[in-house]
Amino acid sequence: MAEKDWKECLKSLKGVVLDMCGVLYDSGEGGGIPIPGSVEAVKRLKASDLQLRFCTNETQATRERFVAKLKRMGFDISVSEVFSPAPAALAILKERNLRPHLLVHDDVLPEFEDVEKTDPNCVVIGDAADRFSYQNLNDAFQVLIQLEKPVLFSLGRGRYYKETDGLKLDVGVYMKALEYACDVEAEVVGKPAPMFFQSVLTDMGIQPQQALMIGDDLINDVGGAQNCGMRGLQVRTGKYRINHNHANTECSAITRMPPSCSSHHSAGDSAYI
Amino acid sequence: MAEKDWKECLKSLKGVVLDMCGVLYDSGEGGGIPIPGSVEAVKRLKASDLQLRFCTNETQATRERFVAKLKRMGFDISVSEVFSPAPAALAILKERNLRPHLLVHDDVLPEFEDVEKTDPNCVVIGDAADRFSYQNLNDAFQVLIQLEKPVLFSLGRGRYYKETDGLKLDVGVYMKALEYACDVEAEVVGKPAPMFFQSVLTDMGIQPQQALMIGDDLINDVGGAQNCGMRGLQVRTGKYRINHNHANTECSAITRMPPSCSSHHSAGDSAYI
Repeated sequence: MAEKDWKECLKSLKGVVLDMCGVLYDSGEGGGIPIPGSVEAVKRLKASDLQLRFCTNETQATRERFVAKLKRMGFDISVSEVFSPAPAALAILKERNLRPHLLVHDDVLPEFEDVEKTDPNCVVIGDAADRFSYQNLNDAFQVLIQLEKPVLFSLGRGRYYKETDGLKLDVGVYMKALEYACDVEAEVVGKPAPMFFQSVLTDMGIQPQQALMIGDDLINDVGGAQNCGMRGLQVRTGKYRINHNHANTECSAITRMPPSCSSHHSAGDSAYI
Repeated sequence: MAEKDWKECLKSLKGVVLDMCGVLYDSGEGGGIPIPGSVEAVKRLKASDLQLRFCTNETQATRERFVAKLKRMGFDISVSEVFSPAPAALAILKERNLRPHLLVHDDVLPEFEDVEKTDPNCVVIGDAADRFSYQNLNDAFQVLIQLEKPVLFSLGRGRYYKETDGLKLDVGVYMKALEYACDVEAEVVGKPAPMFFQSVLTDMGIQPQQALMIGDDLINDVGGAQNCGMRGLQVRTGKYRINHNHANTECSAITRMPPSCSSHHSAGDSAYI
């Protein structure tokens, strides 16, 4: 994007939506570590006139525990500002009278406490990590294949994410596995589903073109936002490097971003607005 | 297929290729159990003028151990008559100077004893069953994603198979998972790869149109064979029912097939020749 276009974009900007893992922090043992400068960047955004929301596909914890972790890292953040797939999925299940077989992380189970789970008529998968055993995936498969019309929900569709000790397979990989096994297409809850971004915009009360999504995932963050008419910007932290094999590109958009929004990060291949 | 066409097909027939799991036996605890009538059917085929080969995507054992199991079930069968993916993969690895990271069943590991495995530059996955843990799949992913041009071999691409205690996810599901994670396309070794069928035809010394493939998998057995110009026939045993949701269709082609080849099984949706 040329500097002129970037300035135009900033003029109409009323809200910023931040991805979290890979933008604010890198996950890993002990919960992960904040990316240098990100705590201050959130602080400055909050002090600005811009609205701010956080939008994550994190499904390894309840939203409450997840936000508590971010607070411990020093972030000024509250539960009501955070949009994550599990509460969105719960709303869909209740609306459609569905009883899920859950293949999710133990720590996100409390989000689904209130829903009937006996005699399941759909499957919900999240980032179950080590719970993605052969046995557990086979159990989910057996529920699906016995349904006349298999219904599969995937909490996000990411390929992988970065932890402090390396890259880890994300839920999208297992979504593809079950899609192939049962010849179905999963319904994605979370990014990049348009409904998910729309719920954030509705909450901010602004139009898509007034919002900027900042993330490290070109498909789920940037592409997803753009499909909704939002602006999207990819940071060079998190999983960025590996996606594009630019081993030596400089990092960190969020620390240099609004309120003094520079066009620094649109100079390379890394920014798509 | 009309009865007339079926008779024409039989006239030119010089060889029969049998899938094994779901056609000759159902796998499961203790190695599985023969499908009623199949031991006798193999015996009759061997007594006929037709050539006979066995073609399997089985990768949970070495060919030797696998054949020994079938012999214990009463089948007249020898190692040289059986075509399976692991020996075919080994030949490719050696030819292309590739060093595999193996994600396969423990019992098939001896097939790969002779190949260099340090500093891997490709990944080979087979039906690893319980070894398809999150950790093991992540290890394979990390090898692939670090390669400039990831090379993934999949020993078959089946979705699932039937064991005596229910349906089990097959290697194809994990192939899809790694394909998505790394944005690559796997090279399939085994059915339905044309090279695999061709090697069986070469061994029999006959033309594709002179050969009939009999299997329970519409894509890997019947479709794969047809893509090579062979005839293909789907039996109603093994995983057949579930594929087509014909809960009450009658079963077992192989027990009623050559040398007195009837057209019985071309009457329904189950036979594709």
